[in-house]
Amino acid sequence: MSLVNPHGGGNLRPLLLEGDAAKVELARASALPKVVVSSREAGDIIMLGIGGFTPLDGFMTHSDWQGVCDGMKMASGLFWPIPVTLSTNDETIAVGNEIALVSNESDEILATMKVSEKYVIDKAHECMQVYKTTDTEHPGVKMVMDQGKYNLAGAIKVLSTGGFTEKYGEQFMTPAETRAKFQAMGWTRIAAFQTRNPMHRSHEYLAKIAIETMDGVLIHSLLGNLKPGDIPAEVRSEAIEVLTKNYFAPNTTIQAGYPLDMRYAGPREALLHALFRQNYGCSHLIVGRDHAGVGDYYGPFDAQKIFDDIPKGSLETVNMNIDWTFWCNKCGGMASQRTCPHSKDDRILLSGTKVRSMLSEGQTLPVEFSRPEVAAVLQKYYQGLSAEQNVKVELKGHSAA
Amino acid sequence: MSLVNPHGGGNLRPLLLEGDAAKVELARASALPKVVVSSREAGDIIMLGIGGFTPLDGFMTHSDWQGVCDGMKMASGLFWPIPVTLSTNDETIAVGNEIALVSNESDEILATMKVSEKYVIDKAHECMQVYKTTDTEHPGVKMVMDQGKYNLAGAIKVLSTGGFTEKYGEQFMTPAETRAKFQAMGWTRIAAFQTRNPMHRSHEYLAKIAIETMDGVLIHSLLGNLKPGDIPAEVRSEAIEVLTKNYFAPNTTIQAGYPLDMRYAGPREALLHALFRQNYGCSHLIVGRDHAGVGDYYGPFDAQKIFDDIPKGSLETVNMNIDWTFWCNKCGGMASQRTCPHSKDDRILLSGTKVRSMLSEGQTLPVEFSRPEVAAVLQKYYQGLSAEQNVKVELKGHSAA
Repeated sequence: MSLVNPHGGGNLRPLLLEGDAAKVELARASALPKVVVSSREAGDIIMLGIGGFTPLDGFMTHSDWQGVCDGMKMASGLFWPIPVTLSTNDETIAVGNEIALVSNESDEILATMKVSEKYVIDKAHECMQVYKTTDTEHPGVKMVMDQGKYNLAGAIKVLSTGGFTEKYGEQFMTPAETRAKFQAMGWTRIAAFQTRNPMHRSHEYLAKIAIETMDGVLIHSLLGNLKPGDIPAEVRSEAIEVLTKNYFAPNTTIQAGYPLDMRYAGPREALLHALFRQNYGCSHLIVGRDHAGVGDYYGPFDAQKIFDDIPKGSLETVNMNIDWTFWCNKCGGMASQRTCPHSKDDRILLSGTKVRSMLSEGQTLPVEFSRPEVAAVLQKYYQGLSAEQNVKVELKGHSAA
Repeated sequence: MSLVNPHGGGNLRPLLLEGDAAKVELARASALPKVVVSSREAGDIIMLGIGGFTPLDGFMTHSDWQGVCDGMKMASGLFWPIPVTLSTNDETIAVGNEIALVSNESDEILATMKVSEKYVIDKAHECMQVYKTTDTEHPGVKMVMDQGKYNLAGAIKVLSTGGFTEKYGEQFMTPAETRAKFQAMGWTRIAAFQTRNPMHRSHEYLAKIAIETMDGVLIHSLLGNLKPGDIPAEVRSEAIEVLTKNYFAPNTTIQAGYPLDMRYAGPREALLHALFRQNYGCSHLIVGRDHAGVGDYYGPFDAQKIFDDIPKGSLETVNMNIDWTFWCNKCGGMASQRTCPHSKDDRILLSGTKVRSMLSEGQTLPVEFSRPEVAAVLQKYYQGLSAEQNVKVELKGHSAA
């Protein structure tokens, strides 16, 4: 048995330059015209840098964009569920130019790019195809609608990991690093648990079902930007740390993070989550209720169903679907709608709003809902927030992804 | 998606005659020389009758026997882990004879057979290869050692299901019937839960892990003979009935039974369990701790490991391994050694002897160990036994298979 292959079937393709090559390119880059990139674009650049978007060599062309929007495949025929594009309003950039891509947050030069194509897209079409809505209340749609007038395609050379290495240390693992770790552990059947929220008992249950039947779980946190009010990565990370230390057997979990921003594209993003987990070496992606969703734009299990609709062989990494999970008093244990025959009244279900208000007020959460050690980390965080900040915070009670 | 193919890749091969053909053959059979068969052999005949041993056409030849003992394959190359043989001490039976096979319990004619080969085996060799011991304290070894001097090979025509249909009604499902049922339910990913004991919470947990990730579970009870002291099939069946009714979601389990006697061959029997579950249409066999074991003849996870040692493609039905399971007070839920980091002191573990004595004395079992409804069924059974019978009863606390 061996690990799943990187997407496309070849080797990992990290676009990050290192050592002298990086220094030379950085020196050259400082003289190039600068294009400022958004937080989402910066995350994509870093993901391309570490090989998470293997086998892409940069940002997509118009025909790639069209194929991905309309049929989830690039011009080459390669399966890809969400456009990876770069935009600008700069009228002066022309095909053939070399440009430096600069973070809008840190002013750091993240990459250089040779512009192979400059094109205009139908943003509303992308939103309808990918997000199933053009409602700009949807944070992913808003990101597309806020893009520049032009998209720029081209191969990139990545020069930085944008501060993630410094901020998250060993937790910021590259696909090559998770693969090496899995091999050192002798793991081949690995479920990725995608998370952008702290893990309560319902999420622990999902991860443990995977552990019961596989070699281990990669608890894989999004370290990029979230919508306002989501729990910051460092708090999540601490909460996951106390959970695994106290409630998981040794050598069954690895906690790591990846640099992308959430797009909240629901089903399409679940496919992207599986795609890049294949690059990280995971054989399975746990897909629970409302995976990568936001608001009511997607049905609670649309992100599971979409895996049945893609052509066979699109991905080696497969979905491991799990239904809505909770503690049930009559079951006397964790369960899901597939394993519990009892009624809602027997189940401990707390809304996100309720959880947040309990934690902000220093109340203890029921032990059936959250481990006391986890609740304590969150309590500390919420109580450190100002009253005004607290109002904005929205903690989702059951969707981690 | 479709169901797994019957073993060998062809159609199911039930050897049972029905209607007029059965009547004619039965009339003919009554004039044939009779060979009395043991309970194990009777179970094998009925299994051949309903197609559970597809694609066998009868009892094995010497070269089949040798190949199965030494390399788990028949002369044809077909994978088979345990000999399916018929024995006799009758010196008068000769190759070419037609004989009637008669139950040693009911005197019923179960089948006719044309003897194609009469041969002597090295019983100790079979025992060492299949059971890993020649100790006649081992009930499977004893069965082999008690066999007649000669083995008889030949194709059989089956005339009866030996009373199972009458005794167990709809629960005695044939492979064709379980397959039809799975198709009607729209199931393709089905785990078989092998059981020869009542289901306590540890077994419920195994089944529910499968349900969380698959279409459903076939709770598949052995209806043939067990070693003295095991719980009778009808009591088990009632206990499973109250369990599924009260603690499983509708349309996630099917309870059925099969006619074999236990051989207690541990790892080799786990492979046989997977093989005939393939005929029943199950894609997976749940393999827990000490599957099909007895005493200390096998390591607790030998029956899981053997699946890694058979040639790829031997079986379509695969093993779903689950570690030793229990309630843990610190976890506050069911767990296994793979998901619980706590110590033995935190776990609710009762020996079989302890469970039996508690039930016999009318004590309640901890709700973390057994569902009250299940415990009540068992209590009623134990309290109905005489004191002398009770001493003989041995209830295993954690191994269902």
